[in-house]
Amino acid sequence: MSVPPWRATVLTLYPEMFPGPLGTSLAGRALQDGTWAIEARDIRASATSRHRNVDDTPAGGGPGMVMRADIVAAAIDAALTPDDTRPRLLMSPRGRPLQQSRVRALAEEQGVIVVCGRFEGVDERVIAGRGLEEVSIGDYVLSGGELGAMVLIDAVVRLLPGVMGASASGEEESFEGGLLEYPHYTRPREWEGQSIPEILLSGDHQAIARWRRAEAERITRERRPDLLAARR
Amino acid sequence: MSVPPWRATVLTLYPEMFPGPLGTSLAGRALQDGTWAIEARDIRASATSRHRNVDDTPAGGGPGMVMRADIVAAAIDAALTPDDTRPRLLMSPRGRPLQQSRVRALAEEQGVIVVCGRFEGVDERVIAGRGLEEVSIGDYVLSGGELGAMVLIDAVVRLLPGVMGASASGEEESFEGGLLEYPHYTRPREWEGQSIPEILLSGDHQAIARWRRAEAERITRERRPDLLAARR
Repeated sequence: MSVPPWRATVLTLYPEMFPGPLGTSLAGRALQDGTWAIEARDIRASATSRHRNVDDTPAGGGPGMVMRADIVAAAIDAALTPDDTRPRLLMSPRGRPLQQSRVRALAEEQGVIVVCGRFEGVDERVIAGRGLEEVSIGDYVLSGGELGAMVLIDAVVRLLPGVMGASASGEEESFEGGLLEYPHYTRPREWEGQSIPEILLSGDHQAIARWRRAEAERITRERRPDLLAARR
Repeated sequence: MSVPPWRATVLTLYPEMFPGPLGTSLAGRALQDGTWAIEARDIRASATSRHRNVDDTPAGGGPGMVMRADIVAAAIDAALTPDDTRPRLLMSPRGRPLQQSRVRALAEEQGVIVVCGRFEGVDERVIAGRGLEEVSIGDYVLSGGELGAMVLIDAVVRLLPGVMGASASGEEESFEGGLLEYPHYTRPREWEGQSIPEILLSGDHQAIARWRRAEAERITRERRPDLLAARR
């Protein structure tokens, strides 16, 4: 292909974690065919002390360790070329919650630079100092940013041209149109006393589309009224 | 240790993805020392057809494929012992959003059984038929449930006794008390013209605690007013 690949640069203390799960299945095939590329860079390579420390105790006291601003900044600087306009993300539970609309926008970029925090977090000053966008994958705390980076990259990669194929364009899935997806059924028609809803076997495509729309709205109303409120 | 390990059973079409990132770092050390255990089981092993198909076309038409209820149920049944009371989760964007409070509750269980969907989803009937709790890690779509399962397991494992150590108990981090975490700083004191806030260098522990609380509230108000609203 003549299209340059979507390019993810991950800054981490655990470069050996990558591509990991992203090397398998859908994302793995797209990685092999050059639709996207990944470079995992070791933040520790930017440490300057003899013991290659990347963290220090928190100013003001408290548990844990904080990743140093100067070392994270040096790792970012070393990863950049002067013309690099890719968004610079920091995976953090304090960030803006990742949503499918942001995932779609990231798929339109040339790629991303993702910084993975560890320990108690990174020194606040590097966030402003290097223009990092804090992104959260959800309201829970992980042992580091690496799984968050994988989640973000997987979500983006499946939307890159050609990855899912024309038959599954992602246009009818959860969060498109602000709704959760309708329920799915397949053979067998009867299973443990539960039947596939009759309408899905009717062959009436308009009626099926109406039913699916109504089910998507019902499920969203029941489970995620916040999504419906956000559409208004 | 005489305490039985917290036990994760993952049902997936990609058992080779596990433990993957969970075998590294914090979770990896806890896996090695027997604090938790993981078993990844291939759903395809429960397929009965000659070609070991696990999916079929959606009833009512549409793109993609749906995982069959009978095969997913057989995979669950094969993984269970009669006395198994662990929660049975299905990773799905249609599920209840995972929150830190649920993570804490799961850490009190004996473990979890996690079903990872693929393709367009799983046949709706197996959810009721096997009492699956649908869990979403966020409002975006992944290529499968595997990364979601890893996120959930990582979040739980770090809370298991002994994993983080006494010095970092997780009591001052994001989402505890319904707030995002305050900003962190460490050496050097000056970096690229930005200083550590004076108060953190004052040695006045009460003043530092007040400042951190106020910062946590400010950041939460600015970024996540929804979290503050949920506390009331």
